[in-house]
Order: sequence, then C-alpha cells, then structure tokens
Amino acid sequence: MVRFGLLGAGRIGQIHGRNIAASKRAVLVAIADPMPGAAESLAEATGASVRTLDEILAAGDIDAVLIATPTDTHADFIDRAAKAGKAVLCEKPVDLSSARIEETLKAVEKAGVPLMIGFNRRFDPNFAALQARVAEGAVGTVELITILSRDPAPPPVSYIKHSGGLFRDMMIHDFDMARFLLGEEVVEVHSVGSSLVDPAIGEAGDVDTAAVLLKTASGKICQISNSRRATYGYDQRIEVHGSEGMISAGNVHETTVRLAGKNGVTADPVQNFFLERYAAAYAREIEAFIDAIAEGRQPRPNGRDGLEAQRLADAATTAHQTGKSVKLG
Amino acid sequence: MVRFGLLGAGRIGQIHGRNIAASKRAVLVAIADPMPGAAESLAEATGASVRTLDEILAAGDIDAVLIATPTDTHADFIDRAAKAGKAVLCEKPVDLSSARIEETLKAVEKAGVPLMIGFNRRFDPNFAALQARVAEGAVGTVELITILSRDPAPPPVSYIKHSGGLFRDMMIHDFDMARFLLGEEVVEVHSVGSSLVDPAIGEAGDVDTAAVLLKTASGKICQISNSRRATYGYDQRIEVHGSEGMISAGNVHETTVRLAGKNGVTADPVQNFFLERYAAAYAREIEAFIDAIAEGRQPRPNGRDGLEAQRLADAATTAHQTGKSVKLG
Amino acid sequence: MVRFGLLGAGRIGQIHGRNIAASKRAVLVAIADPMPGAAESLAEATGASVRTLDEILAAGDIDAVLIATPTDTHADFIDRAAKAGKAVLCEKPVDLSSARIEETLKAVEKAGVPLMIGFNRRFDPNFAALQARVAEGAVGTVELITILSRDPAPPPVSYIKHSGGLFRDMMIHDFDMARFLLGEEVVEVHSVGSSLVDPAIGEAGDVDTAAVLLKTASGKICQISNSRRATYGYDQRIEVHGSEGMISAGNVHETTVRLAGKNGVTADPVQNFFLERYAAAYAREIEAFIDAIAEGRQPRPNGRDGLEAQRLADAATTAHQTGKSVKLG
Amino acid sequence: MVRFGLLGAGRIGQIHGRNIAASKRAVLVAIADPMPGAAESLAEATGASVRTLDEILAAGDIDAVLIATPTDTHADFIDRAAKAGKAVLCEKPVDLSSARIEETLKAVEKAGVPLMIGFNRRFDPNFAALQARVAEGAVGTVELITILSRDPAPPPVSYIKHSGGLFRDMMIHDFDMARFLLGEEVVEVHSVGSSLVDPAIGEAGDVDTAAVLLKTASGKICQISNSRRATYGYDQRIEVHGSEGMISAGNVHETTVRLAGKNGVTADPVQNFFLERYAAAYAREIEAFIDAIAEGRQPRPNGRDGLEAQRLADAATTAHQTGKSVKLG
Repeated sequence: MVRFGLLGAGRIGQIHGRNIAASKRAVLVAIADPMPGAAESLAEATGASVRTLDEILAAGDIDAVLIATPTDTHADFIDRAAKAGKAVLCEKPVDLSSARIEETLKAVEKAGVPLMIGFNRRFDPNFAALQARVAEGAVGTVELITILSRDPAPPPVSYIKHSGGLFRDMMIHDFDMARFLLGEEVVEVHSVGSSLVDPAIGEAGDVDTAAVLLKTASGKICQISNSRRATYGYDQRIEVHGSEGMISAGNVHETTVRLAGKNGVTADPVQNFFLERYAAAYAREIEAFIDAIAEGRQPRPNGRDGLEAQRLADAATTAHQTGKSVKLG
Repeated sequence: MVRFGLLGAGRIGQIHGRNIAASKRAVLVAIADPMPGAAESLAEATGASVRTLDEILAAGDIDAVLIATPTDTHADFIDRAAKAGKAVLCEKPVDLSSARIEETLKAVEKAGVPLMIGFNRRFDPNFAALQARVAEGAVGTVELITILSRDPAPPPVSYIKHSGGLFRDMMIHDFDMARFLLGEEVVEVHSVGSSLVDPAIGEAGDVDTAAVLLKTASGKICQISNSRRATYGYDQRIEVHGSEGMISAGNVHETTVRLAGKNGVTADPVQNFFLERYAAAYAREIEAFIDAIAEGRQPRPNGRDGLEAQRLADAATTAHQTGKSVKLG
Repeated sequence: MVRFGLLGAGRIGQIHGRNIAASKRAVLVAIADPMPGAAESLAEATGASVRTLDEILAAGDIDAVLIATPTDTHADFIDRAAKAGKAVLCEKPVDLSSARIEETLKAVEKAGVPLMIGFNRRFDPNFAALQARVAEGAVGTVELITILSRDPAPPPVSYIKHSGGLFRDMMIHDFDMARFLLGEEVVEVHSVGSSLVDPAIGEAGDVDTAAVLLKTASGKICQISNSRRATYGYDQRIEVHGSEGMISAGNVHETTVRLAGKNGVTADPVQNFFLERYAAAYAREIEAFIDAIAEGRQPRPNGRDGLEAQRLADAATTAHQTGKSVKLG
Repeated sequence: MVRFGLLGAGRIGQIHGRNIAASKRAVLVAIADPMPGAAESLAEATGASVRTLDEILAAGDIDAVLIATPTDTHADFIDRAAKAGKAVLCEKPVDLSSARIEETLKAVEKAGVPLMIGFNRRFDPNFAALQARVAEGAVGTVELITILSRDPAPPPVSYIKHSGGLFRDMMIHDFDMARFLLGEEVVEVHSVGSSLVDPAIGEAGDVDTAAVLLKTASGKICQISNSRRATYGYDQRIEVHGSEGMISAGNVHETTVRLAGKNGVTADPVQNFFLERYAAAYAREIEAFIDAIAEGRQPRPNGRDGLEAQRLADAATTAHQTGKSVKLG
C-alpha cells in the first residue's frame, strides 16, 4: 500500500484524489489546499484527513506526494518533497523555465526519490496501445508521425496570460507524445502560429492555432498541430508511419449510435471533455506510479521527460517568434 | 439514500454489490450468500455486513433487495421480499415458467412494492441512446428491427442443461430489447435453431445457433439471431429501420487503434466479455432503480416486461420444436 | 470475339448493350426492340445494326443472345434461341412459374447451348470478393448469413401488380445470393411480410416489407430482409458468420467525404441507384459469360440457379400467405 | 464537339486519349508520339489517326491539344500550340523553372487561347466534393489544412535524378490542392525532408520523406506530408479544419469487405495505383476543359495555378536545402 498526500484539491486534484482512493494498492491519507472547503469536500468523499502542506511533507505516515497545485509552485514543492524523502508525482509542467527544471532535477537526483511527471496521455488506453505496438515494430522503423490536439474551446484570456503560451501550456503534451513515439531526440524545430479563434488571445501575445515540424538526428519527422477550437468535440489523434505500415489511434465517440437519413450517415460526436476522454488515463497513471515505487525504479515519464518536453516547447515558441527554425542538442 | 440488501454474492452479485456501494444515493447494508466466503469478501470490500437471507428480509434498516441468486430461487425470493415490503431488483429471468411468473406478479401487485427485472441492456449507453432516439422519432415509424447477439464461447453443457434452453437463457435479452424498441406487443413468432458450435449442446437437447422472426399486430417485423460463438469478441448489435431512416448501435472496440499494412486496415477486436461491455449498463441500472423508488413509481423493465419476454422465449422454443409459427395475444 | 444479338433495348438492355460494345472480347452485332426508336438510338451509340427478333435468331453472324425483354417473354425467347443454337444470357427471372422454367431448362439441355441467368449481384466486386473468401474458408464453416436489400423507393403499383410479388421480384436476388454463399440447398422456409411503405401495395395484394428465415439440411441459417424504402440510399449488405469469424460486405458511399460538426460526424449518403451501385457488376457479368463460352463450359449462375431461386421465392410467398413454414427438397 | 490532338502516347497519354475518345462532347482526331508503335496502338483503339507533331499543330480539324509528353518539352509545345491558336491542356508541371513558366504564360496570354494544367486531383470526386463544401462554408472560415500523399513505392532513381526533386515532382500536387482549398496565397514556407525509404534517393540528392508548413497572410496554416512509400496502398487524404467544424476526404478501399477474427476487424486495403484511384478524376478533367472551351472562358487550374504551385515547390526545395523558412509574395 502506497500512502499518498495530495497537494491541491482543484479540478485535477479531485480526479487524482478519487483515483488514489479507488486504487487497491494506495490509500489517500491527507489533502492540503489553501482554498477553504476544497480539501474538506474531497476528504469527506475519500476518508482522507485535511492537513497543511507542511504537515504532509513532514508526515511519517505518507510515502508519496501528488502535486496538483498551480504551475508556479511545482518546482518548489518537488524540491521540498524530495528533501523530505517522498516519492513525487507532479502535474505537468515542472516549471515554465527549463533552467529551473534542471535545478529541481538535480535536487531530486540528490535525494534519490522517484519523480514522475503527469503526462497523462501516455496512459490513455488507445495511445498506450499505439505506442506499445510501435515499440514492438508493428510498423517497422518509424518515419513520420502526425499528432493532432484540438480543445473544444479556449480557456479564459486571463489564464492564457500566465500559461507560458500555447506551445508550453497545450502543445507540451504533444511534444511528450512525440518523444514517446519517436524513440530518439529532436534536433530541429520549425513552428508557425496564428490567432484565428479569438483576437483577444492574439492581443495577449499568444496564438490559438499552431503547427510545428520536428526532425530527429536520423531524419525522422513529426508534425504536430494544435487549436483551441473544435466544434465537434475534443479531438486527439495520432498517426505513425513506418517502413512497414501505418498505425493510428483516434477519437472516442460518445456512443456507437449511427443515424442514416437523407443527409448521410451520422456518428455521434466525439467525447467533448478531457476529463471524460482521459478518465482511464488518469487512473492508469496512478497505477504506473505505484508500480515504479513497488519495483524500486524510476517511473516514466520522469523529470528528464518533463525537461525535454519543455525544451521543445521553448524551441517552438522561439521558432514561432523569430520565424526561424531552432536547432537543438 | 436507498439501503440495499444483496442476495447472492456470485459473479453478478459482486458487480451489483460494488455498484451499489459506489452509488452516491445508495448504501449496501448487508449481503447474504450460502457459499462460505463469498459474502464475506464482498462485505470487506464494500463495508457491508454479512447476514442471513432471513435477517435481510426482516431487517428494519433495509429498503430494497437485489436478488442475484440462482434462477430457480428468484420467484420465491421476490414473493418473500415483497411480503416484507422491500423494493425488489431481480436478475432475469423471473422464472423459467410463465405461470410461476404470473403468480409472483400478483403477489408483488398485492404487496404494492416496486419490482424491476435486470434486463441490463436497456441501460447500455449505446442501446439506451438508440432507444431514446427511436422514441423521439429519429427514424419515423419503426418498420423492421434486426438484433444480433453472439457470445464469445458457449457455457458448460452442465449449465445449458438447466438453463431452459438458448431462447430462455440467452435470447431473452433480445426479446426484451425487441419489445423495448418495437413499442407494441408481438403476435407471431417464427423460429429456427441448430447445433453447430458444439455437438454436446445438441445432445443435451438445446441449440447454439438460432434465429427468430417476430411480427406485431400493426405489421412491424423483428429479426433476432443468436450464437454461442464469436471468435472476434462479444458481438451485440441492433439496427432499426423506420419510415424516415435507419439507426444502429454497434460493438465497442477495445481501443481506437488501427493498423494498416499489406493485408488491409485492421481495427482492434471488439470487447470480449459481457462484464466489460456492460459495465456502465449495470451501474446505470442501479441508478434507474433508485430513481423509481425516489419518485415513488414502478421501475422499468418491470415484472410484466419480465413476463412478456418469457412468453416470447416460450413461443420461440415451441416454434423451433414444432417447426410451426406460434400466435400470441 | 463473341458476337452478340440483344433482345430488348429498355433501361437494362441499354446497360448490357453498352457493356457488350465496350468489351474487348465481344461485338454487339444487332439489336431488336418492338418500341420504335429504342433499338435505333442504342445502335447509333454502339455501331450495331437494328434487326427484328427473327432476324437475330436466324443470323449466321451472331453467337450469343442477351435477353432483356419483359419477364413473360423470357422462357419463350430462351427456347427459340436455344433451338437456334445460340448461347443465352437471360435477365432474371426466367419465368414466374417454376414449371415453365423446368420446361425451358429441358429445351436448353437438349439444345446443348450455354445458358446464364442475370443475377448480377454475384459479380458485384464487393459481393464477389466476399463469396470468394467464404469459399476459401476465411470464416471456417458457414453457420449464419444475414442479407439485407432495401430499395430507395417502391416501383409504381401498376408494375407491382404484374411482378409476381416482392418475394419473386425483389427478394429473388437475395435467394440467389443465399444459395451462392450457403453452398448447399435450403430445406425450410419461414416468411413474414407487411405493407408498411405504401397502403396501395397492400391493396394490390403484395407486401413492401418482408423477412424470411431459411435453413439447410446441415442446419445452416440464413436471414433475409427486404424493404421497398430506404431514405438513405440503396442499401445492400451481407454478413456471413462462420466457425472462425465473420465477414461482411457493405454499402458504397457516394464519396469518402466526412463532415464533423456539433451534431456528430457525417459520412456522405450511400449510392442511391442500382445502376450506379451495380455498374461494375453488369460489366463483369458479360465478361463471365464470355469466359464460359470461351472455355466451352456452362456459365454460373445457370438455369438451375434460376429455377432454385424461383422455388425459394415461391416457398416464401406461400409461407407468408399461409403463415406456415414450407419444407423443400 | 471539341476536336483533340494528343501529343504523347505514353502511360498518361493513353489515359487521356481513351477518355477523350469516350467523351460524348469530344473527338480524338490525331495522335503524335516519336516512339514507334505507341501512337499506332492508341489510334487503333480509338479510331484516331497518327500524325506528326507539326501536322497536329498545323491541322485545321483540331481545336485543342493535350500535351502528355516529357516535362522538358511542355513549355515549348504550349508556346507552339498557343501560337497555332489551339486550346491547350498540359500535364503538370509546365516546366521545372518558374522563369520559363512565366515566359510561356505571356505567350499564352498574347495568343488568347485557353490553357489548363493537369492537376487531376481537383477533379477527384472525393476531393472535388470536399472543396465544393469548403467553398460553400460547410466548416466556416478555413483555419488549418492537413494534406497527406504517399506513393506505394518510389520511382526508379534514374527518374528521380531528372524529376526536379520530390517537392517539384510529387508534392506539387499537394501545393495545388493547398491553394485550391486555402482560397488565398501562401506567404511563408517551412520544410524538412529526409531520405528514409531508399538511400540511393539520398545519394541522388533528393529526399523520399518530407513535410512542409505553409502560412497565408491572414494566418491560415497548411501541413503537407509526402512519402515515396506506403505498404498499405496509395494514401491520399485531406482534412480541413474551420471555425465551424472539420471536413475530410479519405482513401478509397478496394472493396467494402471486412473480415472479423481473433486479431480484429480488417478492411480491405486501399486502392494501390494512382490510375485506379484517379480514373474518374482524369475523365472529369477532360470534361471540365471542354466546359471551359464551350463557355468561352479560361479553365481552372490555369497557367497561373501551375506557376504558383511551382513557386511553392521551389520555396520548399530552398527551405529544405537551407534549413531556413522562405517568405513569398
């Protein structure tokens, strides 16, 4: 049994807290959140206690800390949890600054604790099956990957202003998936972005529609596109072309119902909300973290995965701003 | 909060017990099962107590009884629970004898308690959405329905001998779905059956592959086919043709992964196990039962739905055995 | 080069005439049609001459006759063409009377000429591929087949009155496909029919919606359903279940375009017209007939295939009218 | 009736020649080809005569010339045909040099003859329907387009050496489709390419796997990817995202047959050959050219479309070679 403390009881903290409580191999011991009421309601639903952050980090009855607080606190809390000898599962991103992430990774390494970063999509049953088959050689040698992510609607501009921009806030998931599937590091990043969905996003200095091209040292190519808008649901797809074939993972529809009439044959919309689409992924992520702890090894995606994804996001941001490709490594 | 007692802690009782325990509007108070250990392990997982059947029926802290015991006990336990004033959710079938079901329905009517029969497929999100749209007129007036159910593999012959035969044991679900979708009663039943999957099933006097034709008074037609074998997963599909179009609900695939290679484009197999395919249906069934209790009305599918499905199963059995169609109503 | 005479230059005669003219192994020598102008326009388009029926049957420069005249002339023209030593490709059905068909088959046998019946669906690339794979054992031993045919809209009631009824006019194609796929003869026929699309069809003594159940001596089952209405296009599907899997052939959509929006993901309608859907089938049918002539063997589907399909149509008609199943063979 | 002369009776000339001969509004008068026998066999099949190039250009009985000769002759033959007052349909590309294309366009403009460039994909029924619906606003304002083209196998290296490279030889079709769908000109081109399929292609100075990013002045984005390899057939897909939805056009499968077994549900491979996939497109292209002549207007895609696609191919080649994005316009 892994005994968890949860830092942050907001939307994503609620998901993690309930998944920990439902796991047969974990127990949710305590929850901390500065917002009055947030920790309490989750504690009531799960049987956990409410404590302060300091109490959780100092607790002898807690083995692992799940960090689901605002981004700008992640690195600091990882440092403190690592110093306290806790295993850490931290929501992405580690930090908006790659330099700050590197500091944290050193602290974690020194402490010798497991650190996992919450790139939940690696645990989506569809994407996980895709990656497993690619790794088994189902399509031969990987040559070209296309990743697409589109949110149903943009977040508030107030959020966007502090998000680090689309490449760091949204496309970072796709950068992690690209690395997960390419099996080697990217050496070249090209990027274009536009504000087409909401002019206020452009005025805030960000883009809402973007595409990048990545290339690895051996010549593998990856295309990624993102948009803050999709009228037909939460669009999340990956396609991998290799020397011996192609494999793809697609969207999940709300039902299998199809209606045929004068205008054609209509399938139900795809699931519209990331918490619905990735419900299984979040639960499996907790189990993978527990597996690593149980087996005494570093989990994946680890801190270095967090750092490399952030470097790609930085490079894409620069490439977009300068109009020039960025070389890495 | 509806307070449940669970009778029977076998495979299906375990599912129901956990769904009751997970419901925000229900509490699993007690479990009874004559097999040593069965009730205990479920009680431990859910926080319920272990009691005898008599204790549950006599309990003042229990509002509703879920019956998941062997078929030949259903009618008797419904009678007793009704007499004790409990709301009842009973697994299908009520009984293999229609006459016995009628007696039980009278007892339930006299007691004035809610009785729901566990035709879980009505609550499958795909089939429920299909029926809702048909009822809304999405395809106009219903004209012809095709229902297909195929199990991955046959049950043991020892089970089949006491099952009442394929039409009563397996196709009864499809008869209920037919009535659910046709919106009127069947007046004519044609039936053919064969033993193609396992000769031992034929030797036991049953069939493993069968098809029926149903017709209603207004001329609507329904085709049903069943097989105890499907190499590609648990096959469960419905197609409804109406005056203005066609609507269908199909199988659920294990993932959305597709692999394209020299032999074509292969989608992952469909889910292979009824508990996986109908996991959501079982949970929604409990909620629908609670809804009816909360609103003080009879739930659906009710006892009469159980009786009518049984009559269709009887008619199909007779039609198959005599080679002649059977008229009803 | 096979030299053809064409009897009948109506809608279906036009199709056959153009396909013969386009074949690299055939030449369309002459066309006969009692309607002024019909033969002439086709002759102009194809370079054929216009002759009378008698001239075509007596011609020394014609090897084969394609009969595309009204149904009630088929048997007589087959007799005469056979006597004249011509190979014959006759549109289905041979005749509405099975007794009359038997007479004709004797005459053909005596003459020793090739006779092919125009069950064009055997040559549809989709259905032909399906049958070839079933014959190769792709699904093991066949157990249960489902065939569905729905026309976009009913023909005029005036046509229906002389058509022999839905089972002989429309479902006869499906009976032929059933025999093509089952690989053995049917011994039992169950049938239901209704008039749901157009009351005038019912008043004319026919049905517009129907379903049959067929069973073979070894226990294989086939379901067929027909309707004179399909708002979403010309619906033509087959599904074959066997001991080792399932194989199906579906509809052909007008394009591969799909539109995703608030209401879901809509595929273009299926092709709406049988001449569009079966364009390739008609062309391939001519080539198969030429193959048989070139190889000096009887073509398939042959006269006996025409007779057996007619017997099934007769049986289904009787079963529907009496409400009782019909035994064959 | 438009009277055609055909220059070039190679693989693509054969296709065009037969389509002209089959058109009800065109006649194939004469064919010229320096290879002995090529023009003769096509002439025999179509009823055309064999003439020299000079005879065709000077002929009084020829209205239009279709140029299907090697690329390096296109511009010269367009010049000469235009001077002779013939309408011209020329295979893509006009020339590998944009400067040379501009000269030719001036000559055509001076002559005042219609000039159409053979970007056949605009006439594919799937892509044409896609574009028509995009133009009607089916997805609102276009925001992001993804175009994918993959050939089953690379051409011989000897061909590649004189092809102008992948961007000019293969991706030029996709550049034309991008312009067709974007509805505005591209101002920025990013490009990456690799030799992953065949090292000999890399040694010849070309790439066999490539991806580009295009951006228009208003910020619309287009992704294109190409590969000289696809084990699963000829892969040709387009996806258009707009403010109100998404529309796509996909591959054409060989049949609608699907086989379900232990490994999943397998659809037949996609069509493997461009002449099969684009058979309808080539026929419709001829009709569109005839339409323009009949209506006395310039056809589309016209010479300027040929020039702009070539400029994009040049820019992508430069961007790939320099590693830097290229600005246009």
